[in-house]
Amino acid sequence: MLRTHTCGELRLSDASTTVTLSGWVQTIRDKGGVLWIDLRDRYGITQLILEEGVTAADLFATARTLGREFVLQATGQVVERKSKNPNIPTGDVEVRVSALTVLNPAKLPPFLIEDETDGGDDLRMKYRYLDLRRNPVRRNLELRHRMAQQTRLYMDGQQFIEVETPVLIKSTPEGARDFVVPSRMNPGEFYALPQSPQTFKQLLMVSGFDRYYQIVKCFRDEDLRADRQPEFTQIDCEMSFVEQEDILQMFEGLVRHLFKAVKGIDLASVPRMTYADAMRLYGSDKPDTRFGMEFAELKAVHQSGTFDTVDLTSGKGFGVFDSAEIVVGINAPGCASYTRKQLDELTEWIKRPQIGAKGLIYVRYNEDGSLKSSVDKFYTESELKAWAERFGAKPGDLMLIISGDAAKARKQLNELRLEMGTRLGLRDPNVFSTLWVLDFPLLEYGEEEERWFAMHHPFTSPKPEDIPLLETDPGAVRANAYDLVINGTEVGGGSIRIFNRDLQARMFSLLGFSDEEAKAQFGFLMDAFEFGAPPHGGIAFGFDRLCSLFGGADSIRDFIAFPKNNSGRDVMIDSPSTIADKQLDELKIRTVV
Amino acid sequence: MLRTHTCGELRLSDASTTVTLSGWVQTIRDKGGVLWIDLRDRYGITQLILEEGVTAADLFATARTLGREFVLQATGQVVERKSKNPNIPTGDVEVRVSALTVLNPAKLPPFLIEDETDGGDDLRMKYRYLDLRRNPVRRNLELRHRMAQQTRLYMDGQQFIEVETPVLIKSTPEGARDFVVPSRMNPGEFYALPQSPQTFKQLLMVSGFDRYYQIVKCFRDEDLRADRQPEFTQIDCEMSFVEQEDILQMFEGLVRHLFKAVKGIDLASVPRMTYADAMRLYGSDKPDTRFGMEFAELKAVHQSGTFDTVDLTSGKGFGVFDSAEIVVGINAPGCASYTRKQLDELTEWIKRPQIGAKGLIYVRYNEDGSLKSSVDKFYTESELKAWAERFGAKPGDLMLIISGDAAKARKQLNELRLEMGTRLGLRDPNVFSTLWVLDFPLLEYGEEEERWFAMHHPFTSPKPEDIPLLETDPGAVRANAYDLVINGTEVGGGSIRIFNRDLQARMFSLLGFSDEEAKAQFGFLMDAFEFGAPPHGGIAFGFDRLCSLFGGADSIRDFIAFPKNNSGRDVMIDSPSTIADKQLDELKIRTVV
Repeated sequence: MLRTHTCGELRLSDASTTVTLSGWVQTIRDKGGVLWIDLRDRYGITQLILEEGVTAADLFATARTLGREFVLQATGQVVERKSKNPNIPTGDVEVRVSALTVLNPAKLPPFLIEDETDGGDDLRMKYRYLDLRRNPVRRNLELRHRMAQQTRLYMDGQQFIEVETPVLIKSTPEGARDFVVPSRMNPGEFYALPQSPQTFKQLLMVSGFDRYYQIVKCFRDEDLRADRQPEFTQIDCEMSFVEQEDILQMFEGLVRHLFKAVKGIDLASVPRMTYADAMRLYGSDKPDTRFGMEFAELKAVHQSGTFDTVDLTSGKGFGVFDSAEIVVGINAPGCASYTRKQLDELTEWIKRPQIGAKGLIYVRYNEDGSLKSSVDKFYTESELKAWAERFGAKPGDLMLIISGDAAKARKQLNELRLEMGTRLGLRDPNVFSTLWVLDFPLLEYGEEEERWFAMHHPFTSPKPEDIPLLETDPGAVRANAYDLVINGTEVGGGSIRIFNRDLQARMFSLLGFSDEEAKAQFGFLMDAFEFGAPPHGGIAFGFDRLCSLFGGADSIRDFIAFPKNNSGRDVMIDSPSTIADKQLDELKIRTVV
Repeated sequence: MLRTHTCGELRLSDASTTVTLSGWVQTIRDKGGVLWIDLRDRYGITQLILEEGVTAADLFATARTLGREFVLQATGQVVERKSKNPNIPTGDVEVRVSALTVLNPAKLPPFLIEDETDGGDDLRMKYRYLDLRRNPVRRNLELRHRMAQQTRLYMDGQQFIEVETPVLIKSTPEGARDFVVPSRMNPGEFYALPQSPQTFKQLLMVSGFDRYYQIVKCFRDEDLRADRQPEFTQIDCEMSFVEQEDILQMFEGLVRHLFKAVKGIDLASVPRMTYADAMRLYGSDKPDTRFGMEFAELKAVHQSGTFDTVDLTSGKGFGVFDSAEIVVGINAPGCASYTRKQLDELTEWIKRPQIGAKGLIYVRYNEDGSLKSSVDKFYTESELKAWAERFGAKPGDLMLIISGDAAKARKQLNELRLEMGTRLGLRDPNVFSTLWVLDFPLLEYGEEEERWFAMHHPFTSPKPEDIPLLETDPGAVRANAYDLVINGTEVGGGSIRIFNRDLQARMFSLLGFSDEEAKAQFGFLMDAFEFGAPPHGGIAFGFDRLCSLFGGADSIRDFIAFPKNNSGRDVMIDSPSTIADKQLDELKIRTVV
């Protein structure tokens, strides 16, 4: 080794020993004939010292020519520092350099290799290998490593077997767009990259593997938003002879283990909520439960649930509410003092095209107990008081109300709720709130395509008691499907699977597959169900997302070593790129750009 | 859970408790009004018992309708068996069934789900999910899981960080053929799937990650031999601030750990041999050292090495030897009794087109001390005795000799040596012999292409002392490259890397890259070398191969859950396949078959 120690391990107890370190020049201070060099590696920073008149003259001269990020090998004696640095573990000592080799010089980096850098996104992506030197980015990947380790530790302990499933598989029409790979040995044919190992993990259950997991790359050729990557990583799991409750407990266990082992947090048990309640109370199937601000409805008539159904708005002459399917709002605690300007700004915010609300009604519950709203023309103070009661509002609070089509209004109010949560500082990335969302609908209707789509995927089992509705009222069929939500982000989702050929065939038929298409695409799976398939179910976690959550960050990009930009491009290696005509010829394909 | 216990865990101490098991029907015996069902899952087999007159009549009737591979849930009391089965851990007990649910019936499998099956390769590939139920195949994948676990345990303990590198990368002209992926967002451009994460792991070293590893899928679009797969798995590793010796020790440590932890074998330290010696003594850069039979040369004049250089063959009138560049043989111990027929057969064997030797000379060293050869016309018995001395032959042995062009003859004799080793039972798959092969040539000449090729890859560092020869005598330059060989199979290979821009540029130039091409393909790496690249090196192990070796098997296929056949086809899912015109249109490509 070109070192005896790393830059993170020397302590006072090493004083007077001679050591050799290797690493990068973080900083150089040159003052009064003394040179201090902070030498950095993955493990830490150690201070080197050279003194004019004490250090050999040529060595001192060499040291003065060094620049930031030069790679050095330095040998010297460990000595106690005069002025100690309590901020770093090696801060009690320094190394008095007696020999120095420049292993590699370095050009000036295009941005500062510091915790706070001056480099913009594009520059840091192009020189990703330099950005990875920065402590925060390196720590993210170290966190990711620990997350993977601890995931494996837990899964191995529960008798799961890690099995690698293939990357070159078959393109299927259902779901997102596949990346495809032309086959040279089978001209005109293509492999596809897996969007998930779904069918393979189910086949492993048919094979009797009983408990499977894999931390595995998956691929989706979708238009990229800021926080999506064409390749991403899943913790993919499947179990046999289980019911939904078994899976919830097993993977609640995983999440609790990760929080304990990686963050030192004792997580309370994960609360549960039905999809229907999540939509009603938060307008979202992935509510951020770090804060309350649940929806209150002033008009709704619910068929089930515990909600008050008395209509508090109709027939008072306010046509907007009278004609609305729903009148729904949130109570922002302590916000009665919002100025007119702030309220106008909030109204503009929710009317932006991205959100698209038509307007925003407010009711101020003043500290003195009086109520003041933007609909005072239509509602008396005592009527507003009844609203306040339904909102659970207290003096000092501000009620924000929208109305219209139920699905749209809830979606819009969800955005407003999150925005208010952010503005009120209720969404601390270092506070964690988990939630199981259960009883998802099996199907959702695609208005454009005029057909039903699987909400999770076509292999999800309907709840047995809802199976009779499959053909008569498909939209009412609930699935044995579940999502794990943390801080408003879906980090995992799964379901109990269909394991019966006939039910699977009915499902494909509902989704508009002809028998032939179903057979061509998924015949192998339906065949497998006839050779003794056990009841089974599973879950998959978005590993990039889980890591970014644990890291208290918004974006997954900094938890991926070499991410792509929003055009699916790796700007560092300049990929994708054109390929040689010879390659195209061998593959028997042509580009038609 | 649909069970209280697995089929592998009940013992006599569980007697009289009521349990529920779930699993597959392995066998049913129906004799004298008693039904015994062997119920199987991943964990073992438990015997169920039902008795006419004792078991409820409808239950007994149901049980009689069951078939092999039906999936059952059975509840009953654990009782001590009358006739115990000492061959299985659950053999002391059986479960007296009181309730039985058929979770799924099963059609008759197309082949026997037994350790020894009657299914052919094609059938087992098509129904891979059934083949995976068989104990030997399941055990292979369990072994693979343990291998991965223990690899991670060792690497984590040595402070390696597992970092995921991208799968969608850039096509490069050097090396094997790439699989490519058309980019929809960048029409006319393609990603490539990695043949290895080589450049990324080197960039991680430039980033200061210091120690990286990954168990990672890699891809090569090559014509498939029996034992190659288009996608395969590597244990990929890289370290900074190291010299070759550090890497040898670190990964000898890994291999010893794996043998100890997975096989319970205390491996002796791994011997080392130069490439030159391996070629001279075994005619192979991956000699099987489970047995000796080293080459003896009767004519060779070596410039270095310890070999005897006296020519024992020339000038005796045997033109074949006189005109040959080399006369080289092996000594087959105890084979003097080979009949003429056997020797003829061996001669025919080595003359087959796959091997292509022109002939085979033999010398029998009879038990009585006399010598009898196929060249008695030209050589006296005392001359043959001198040969025997050089061979280290003893009475009872058989010397087998070929001659001709040195490179060809060595290659042919390597085949013969392996064949004789097999025939003599010297290649027990449960005996392990390891070897480091060192000092590989940096380059090899491609006669057809009339240029030099990198023997490992273009990033391999020449030995510093050989750098001056790069332009004057490229073929003589040795690399800091090493292979780990076990039982004649290369299981790992790596090198110390170039970390200097100029040297890397010289290397590309030697390989026939123009400056422009080098920059376009690997500019990012050469740029990175200018921003402070540390000395580094690494290694990659073929994980599939390593697993098959540990499993004592020849083929890697049974250590891969879902392998492809020799046409790169997954016959189970029928992939590759044609894709929809819409997909081609979106990708802006066309097939031209």
